[in-house]
Amino acid sequence: MKVEQRIYLRPIGHVKNEFKKGPITDYDNTVSEIILDLEFAEGLDGLDENSHITVVFWMNRIEEDERNVMKLHPKGRKDLPLVGVFATRSPRRPNPMGVSSVKLLKINDNVLMVKGLDALNGTPILDIKPFSKKHDHAEDAKTPWWIERFSEKKIEK
Amino acid sequence: MKVEQRIYLRPIGHVKNEFKKGPITDYDNTVSEIILDLEFAEGLDGLDENSHITVVFWMNRIEEDERNVMKLHPKGRKDLPLVGVFATRSPRRPNPMGVSSVKLLKINDNVLMVKGLDALNGTPILDIKPFSKKHDHAEDAKTPWWIERFSEKKIEK
Repeated sequence: MKVEQRIYLRPIGHVKNEFKKGPITDYDNTVSEIILDLEFAEGLDGLDENSHITVVFWMNRIEEDERNVMKLHPKGRKDLPLVGVFATRSPRRPNPMGVSSVKLLKINDNVLMVKGLDALNGTPILDIKPFSKKHDHAEDAKTPWWIERFSEKKIEK
Repeated sequence: MKVEQRIYLRPIGHVKNEFKKGPITDYDNTVSEIILDLEFAEGLDGLDENSHITVVFWMNRIEEDERNVMKLHPKGRKDLPLVGVFATRSPRRPNPMGVSSVKLLKINDNVLMVKGLDALNGTPILDIKPFSKKHDHAEDAKTPWWIERFSEKKIEK
């Protein structure tokens, strides 16, 4: 079966933070604002009961031809293995969407303050979900050594 | 700033499993195939070093008017609070995308076998990422009581 379907998305808001251009290397303690368009503000009711949220965003600075890359060195580093794009979290991918679970600090009307979002200033937001242990958590996940190298969180107390 | 931008997506494959229609209530131990279109198979190289992957899919049975719902009772249950759509994992949302971290059992060419995917048969796949403790994990996440009720995994040994 070949899926033939037109898929369109509407951004629901955008990111505001200090990251004016990439690559983003140290974001664990950076606070970002997610500014929802006003028409979606009502959809946030009750979200503040969650300590963490999962954010889906659209990496809009990726060029058309970067969406055709199938193999790459993670982070452009030749000392890391050449692997398939789906084995990496690279922004260069067929559908350049980012998924990040981040700490929710505060919600004021249509503005969310979050900590640890690895998205550039102005990035369109596609979806916000409550973090779910069932959907987002993987107990004892095993990952390749070259991902482990980037996986340590640097959280300030 | 208002984000004005056209966003289009191309499905990279689709789901094949036993769930012919929703709602999906018990999927923890269900094995699904994710069948990538052949042109994307090369992008899977190296993914098999991961025990878990994060799958982004497009819930294509959601009707246009269901994308305008801003408040709802989770799972349609009136005994649960009426909350904003972004405080739930409901498929009825402005951009009906699902995000699930699942166990990767095997990869054969362009076909992935996974366990625990809560997507219907035929669902278009938008992205596949290696599960990342940094991006997907939230230590000690706190969630509302009504989400906790659905969060217990039922894994068969």
